[in-house]
Amino acid sequence: MGDVKLFWTWSSPYAQRIVWALKLKGVEYEIMYEDLTNKSSLLFKYNPIHKQVPVLVHNGTPICESLVILEYIDETWKTGAPLLPEDPLARAKARFWAKFNDEQVLPSLKHAYLSHGLEQEKAKGHALNNLDVVEKQLTGKKFFSGETIGFLDIVFGWIAIYLEILEETSGMEPLDKERFPFISAWKENFSDNTFFKEDRPDKEKLITMYKGVREYFRCTAAAK
Amino acid sequence: MGDVKLFWTWSSPYAQRIVWALKLKGVEYEIMYEDLTNKSSLLFKYNPIHKQVPVLVHNGTPICESLVILEYIDETWKTGAPLLPEDPLARAKARFWAKFNDEQVLPSLKHAYLSHGLEQEKAKGHALNNLDVVEKQLTGKKFFSGETIGFLDIVFGWIAIYLEILEETSGMEPLDKERFPFISAWKENFSDNTFFKEDRPDKEKLITMYKGVREYFRCTAAAK
Repeated sequence: MGDVKLFWTWSSPYAQRIVWALKLKGVEYEIMYEDLTNKSSLLFKYNPIHKQVPVLVHNGTPICESLVILEYIDETWKTGAPLLPEDPLARAKARFWAKFNDEQVLPSLKHAYLSHGLEQEKAKGHALNNLDVVEKQLTGKKFFSGETIGFLDIVFGWIAIYLEILEETSGMEPLDKERFPFISAWKENFSDNTFFKEDRPDKEKLITMYKGVREYFRCTAAAK
Repeated sequence: MGDVKLFWTWSSPYAQRIVWALKLKGVEYEIMYEDLTNKSSLLFKYNPIHKQVPVLVHNGTPICESLVILEYIDETWKTGAPLLPEDPLARAKARFWAKFNDEQVLPSLKHAYLSHGLEQEKAKGHALNNLDVVEKQLTGKKFFSGETIGFLDIVFGWIAIYLEILEETSGMEPLDKERFPFISAWKENFSDNTFFKEDRPDKEKLITMYKGVREYFRCTAAAK
């Protein structure tokens, strides 16, 4: 398997994806913990463009961007179940929805969490509309591609951890189980796995951090 | 090869990519011309999320997002040379730089083209810094992956058409051949191909359109 190092931090939903994928593939790896307020010179060396986690370093060569890393893991280690399906059309669909998550769903929830008042109301509406689209993709299914966990479950996996953190720290209502029955059930199904439970970041610690970030953004906006 | 339709418009750099890829693979296709000021109901049906070109419809099933379509084409038609390399590490690098183009290089040039005065000066500096990164990737090479055209040449191919259009319509200086010798040479190498020449959009028509778009954005910004 070679030497596998993961530059990671405990609070990053993007870094968390890589831990899940490596565990599903049974790949042994070493965690290189990054303090995002004081990044290491190695992180700057391995990811000079974005200077962000996650970075997977395989036998000394860095791979950056979480979606790119997920495909690399899937193509490199054939242990465990494949993350992406084999059929080109199913692969294209998975890549399309992964992009939709990273460019639309996750940013819209982040905006709703960081905003206030009327702006937050509008942002919440937009975020919930995006979740409606996700709900439609999950309708009638246990996981995104059917009965087993795959690429899209890992990509959307942040929902199972961070959605309630965003809700609790910004006064958004909890996910409505009547409007989102399949996302609600999927959250349970996804969370009920050893790889997920083993590495779940501490809820109270996340709440403390996310409250702080929201407060910081409110003060920064007020100072402008 | 089945029935292949491409929802396309003459002025879109993203749609142009798909034409190049299909030609390189020798895939026969039918162009479904979209007037972006009056989109067809079929486009809304096939791309309900983004309502944009390009959409590739293969045997009645739509595939959206140009990078996703490129990978679909590469995985579906094994005619012609592969677009992506075989090695997982080389594939990861190609995907990383494609994302960098779509999220950084292209948007930064677009911003420089649409802005004015001091804001444009700042935006130009940012765009040129991004092109420095691209120059470094091309250094010592004819094409992005070496001697033959591949995935990244198609992704960055817009530079060979649109860079001079953006420059001419917004008063930016032409690409400095001393600062960007390899991008300059690559532009010539990429343009010197039948698939490129056959489908090159009319320069005067592009200039007319891009001047109009810049003027529209200036008026909209002034009215705010």
